[in-house]
Amino acid sequence: MAKFTNLDVSPAFRELTNLRPPALASLLSAKRVASCDIPMGGGLSFNWAASPVDEAILDALRRLALEQELVAKYRILVEGEIMNPGEKRMVLHHLARGQLGAKVEREGRDLREFYEAERKKAAEFATAVHSGAIRGSTGKTFTTAVQIGIGGSDLGPRALYLALERWARTEGRARMEARFISNVDPDDANTVLDRCDLERSLFILVSKSGTTQETLANEVLVRRRLEKAGLESARHMVAVTSETSPLARNPGYLASFYIDDFIGGRYSSSSAVGGVVLSLAFGPETFAAFLEGAHEADRLALESDVSRNAALLDALIGVYERNVLGMGATAVLPYSDALARFPAHLQQLDMESNGKRVNRDGASLAYSTGPVVFGEPGTNGQHSFYQLLHQGTDPVPLQFIGFRSGQTAGDVEVEGSTSRAKLQANLIAQIVAFARGKTDADPNKSFPGGRPSTLIRGERLGPAALGALLAHYENKVMFQGFAWNINSFDQEGVQLGKVLAKKVLAASGGGASGGEASGGGASGGEADELLAAYASILLPRKI
Amino acid sequence: MAKFTNLDVSPAFRELTNLRPPALASLLSAKRVASCDIPMGGGLSFNWAASPVDEAILDALRRLALEQELVAKYRILVEGEIMNPGEKRMVLHHLARGQLGAKVEREGRDLREFYEAERKKAAEFATAVHSGAIRGSTGKTFTTAVQIGIGGSDLGPRALYLALERWARTEGRARMEARFISNVDPDDANTVLDRCDLERSLFILVSKSGTTQETLANEVLVRRRLEKAGLESARHMVAVTSETSPLARNPGYLASFYIDDFIGGRYSSSSAVGGVVLSLAFGPETFAAFLEGAHEADRLALESDVSRNAALLDALIGVYERNVLGMGATAVLPYSDALARFPAHLQQLDMESNGKRVNRDGASLAYSTGPVVFGEPGTNGQHSFYQLLHQGTDPVPLQFIGFRSGQTAGDVEVEGSTSRAKLQANLIAQIVAFARGKTDADPNKSFPGGRPSTLIRGERLGPAALGALLAHYENKVMFQGFAWNINSFDQEGVQLGKVLAKKVLAASGGGASGGEASGGGASGGEADELLAAYASILLPRKI
Repeated sequence: MAKFTNLDVSPAFRELTNLRPPALASLLSAKRVASCDIPMGGGLSFNWAASPVDEAILDALRRLALEQELVAKYRILVEGEIMNPGEKRMVLHHLARGQLGAKVEREGRDLREFYEAERKKAAEFATAVHSGAIRGSTGKTFTTAVQIGIGGSDLGPRALYLALERWARTEGRARMEARFISNVDPDDANTVLDRCDLERSLFILVSKSGTTQETLANEVLVRRRLEKAGLESARHMVAVTSETSPLARNPGYLASFYIDDFIGGRYSSSSAVGGVVLSLAFGPETFAAFLEGAHEADRLALESDVSRNAALLDALIGVYERNVLGMGATAVLPYSDALARFPAHLQQLDMESNGKRVNRDGASLAYSTGPVVFGEPGTNGQHSFYQLLHQGTDPVPLQFIGFRSGQTAGDVEVEGSTSRAKLQANLIAQIVAFARGKTDADPNKSFPGGRPSTLIRGERLGPAALGALLAHYENKVMFQGFAWNINSFDQEGVQLGKVLAKKVLAASGGGASGGEASGGGASGGEADELLAAYASILLPRKI
Repeated sequence: MAKFTNLDVSPAFRELTNLRPPALASLLSAKRVASCDIPMGGGLSFNWAASPVDEAILDALRRLALEQELVAKYRILVEGEIMNPGEKRMVLHHLARGQLGAKVEREGRDLREFYEAERKKAAEFATAVHSGAIRGSTGKTFTTAVQIGIGGSDLGPRALYLALERWARTEGRARMEARFISNVDPDDANTVLDRCDLERSLFILVSKSGTTQETLANEVLVRRRLEKAGLESARHMVAVTSETSPLARNPGYLASFYIDDFIGGRYSSSSAVGGVVLSLAFGPETFAAFLEGAHEADRLALESDVSRNAALLDALIGVYERNVLGMGATAVLPYSDALARFPAHLQQLDMESNGKRVNRDGASLAYSTGPVVFGEPGTNGQHSFYQLLHQGTDPVPLQFIGFRSGQTAGDVEVEGSTSRAKLQANLIAQIVAFARGKTDADPNKSFPGGRPSTLIRGERLGPAALGALLAHYENKVMFQGFAWNINSFDQEGVQLGKVLAKKVLAASGGGASGGEASGGGASGGEADELLAAYASILLPRKI
């Protein structure tokens, strides 16, 4: 039985707060670059040379990992323990990638088999679409897949699609284009649809519950456009949903693919939520390679030696920076244009998982939990927010990601170096500049240095590397949640807004409002008056 | 003569730190929603009802504005005082939009006339392109404009283009498509070029100095592709640069448009940097309307009464939240899909301007300056990082933006309300949920509330509203810089990385590296060894 205790009662944590943080400028050395490097799976490595961790701190982190039973908790998680206590659910996204321990069953069903069967179903469906066996209602083959989903049904799959789109074109793996509709703002769906050849478009409706407000509204908008174009909408739409949702086994869809309650939205890219669209876009074998990379990273994360477990060490360094060094944000900086939307996915993954103020038993915490996560690709970010990172008042830990080779052919040599070499040289320069800084007679041109970073590196970004990258962050976030003793797998913080939005809509009598009257009479309370006051300045005017 | 003193010596600031912060949940009322609302220009209003500012705090902020001479400093800035002391430059982006005070001259030239002449030149050029008087080298009309630039030459113009693209299509103002190449990662340029009809593409090379590494590398990549396609690259490319740059009056470009050193990159969207691409995309009259909206906001920001000056009050509330309430980040949350990249622009504008640790005289500061800025459009963000915003340990001030009407036609009613109404209802619900919170028997379902926000609202997002929105944030950032007594107009923090990147490239002998040897011998120091160690694991391998 695992023991769940708060971070601040751990003796190792208390020791960490007493240890003197190392001077990064002198700690970072060529030797550390070579030695502080851990394989992550998918051909990636985690290099922590430029993080503020010396032997004494590493030793305390090692003990912290043991005291908080981080790896032990991961082990029981993958074997089906209820690790989402608020919702009384198992947490099984790892199982969508492979078996890591004993069988996990639910009502006599082997859940690894269930996930694998759904993956195969998606693979067969994709193959049938690619071969032309499945076509649109006017007999034309499908060339575009359009995912309709929001949050975890959008950010992860979209980031992964963008990450592999160029790779697939270069490698001859591109099968279909993919697009994404997420926002309830109809300007989003209208813009995407204006650019689609609807006859050749296959829509993937993704909602686990089958009740997501934004997604259902966008479904209606899409169906209306299809029908207006003379198409049978049921022959242009598939569903990814749970077996108990209203969308399951529904004749309104060409096919349905199933997920269950044990894979949360932000962890669902490895399930049918990502699998259908990625198999359609790049072929089932590419999605399988992605899952293999993720599974390899998952296996490596079972390692109990902190210095050989990249996700675990990344998590512990983050806890040290957050709770001992007091840093409130983390920047994710991929030196790869293909990863342009990966930070937006991590923003959800991390902030929705660990943005919690009570522990798993509901007690208020006296320490900080998840940081603000943000980022943009390098070198773009260098010409944007790096000024604050270098010379701002509050240090921000940095997570660099870089690859030796690019995804596309075609490069030029200018002033003796290729663009690719320039990209990588900038990455190298930034790590060193942040860590070491520079003194200058002009204080405005001085750099304090001592700004910590880590580096995830690989040869080239392809499906296995991407799978390992995604799994690394999922496992890092999980380990941090265990360290903080919070439930990283629920998201009660999104509920209140949903309830109040429905109240506003109900009070406004269906969405059109003239002002004063709206919302006022619903229950007469102060909150209703307030909602009505905002409704009068924000709701669409009555026609 | 203006007086420049640090924030923490201001008596009003010290008083602010002693005032009890109001309980937002009870402060926010229907009455405040109606009364705390300031016109911003362009048809927008700034509603600060849900900010933690009661009468006592407002009064102290009023005095702080006077003590730090915020509006007086803005007045001398627009009249040509050297307000960028590090680089000994005037700061004149407001002048690109209109005259706000006395004439500003440089070497006998009226600079308002200069900016206006460049705007007219861009307008005439765009008109000639639209009419077909100017065509590509094979005689075809141009249909696509591709901006090549990075940082301020990319983020602002790109965000503005996306903000008006749908509006322009709906209103019949769409003249050309625009695309953007920024990253030195050649995967970026290759992907954009693969999707362009090169014969019909006009490239806009934007670099004030004419020496930006990324932009020049991308120029060569683009020219090679054009020539490979049998096109004369000089007839497909214009330059936006300073009159003294190598790109000026250069026969390699079809036309050149000029900017000067008094408009910084992140403030340059109102100059030819934004003007050429936006005039090409939407017509000169749309760009003129955008400038008018910005100019109107600039005029309103001269108002000395804090409660009637939206940019000033927004700035002061931010300083209060940062330096008294200790909040380290700010989220920008536009409930408009068209503003998807506006937060990325604000990230540069704010973090590059105010991420400074020394004051304008070079003395270290004992207080925090610019926050981390991040954001994504609503309702998408609600399904992502809002969990942390509602229930995380560290409150983050929120800047909502919303419009009553959308940009495109086509909406559907589902369950009694349109998508547009749902979008706005969610915005309303979030403001109230963050401010008031909710108690629940289950602590995991409780919301602490007291999380402050402001709201920028308008009828519909069009060019004038967008101009006012942009100018509002530029002026807010400027006022905050004055309050913190920093120079918001230089960016010395970007230099060290540039220098080290060149060193890595020089040591690697042109970009291809086999490992150990690279960088090592440059000057033999410890830093060189370190750069070499990273080069051995990150630089592209020698072929």
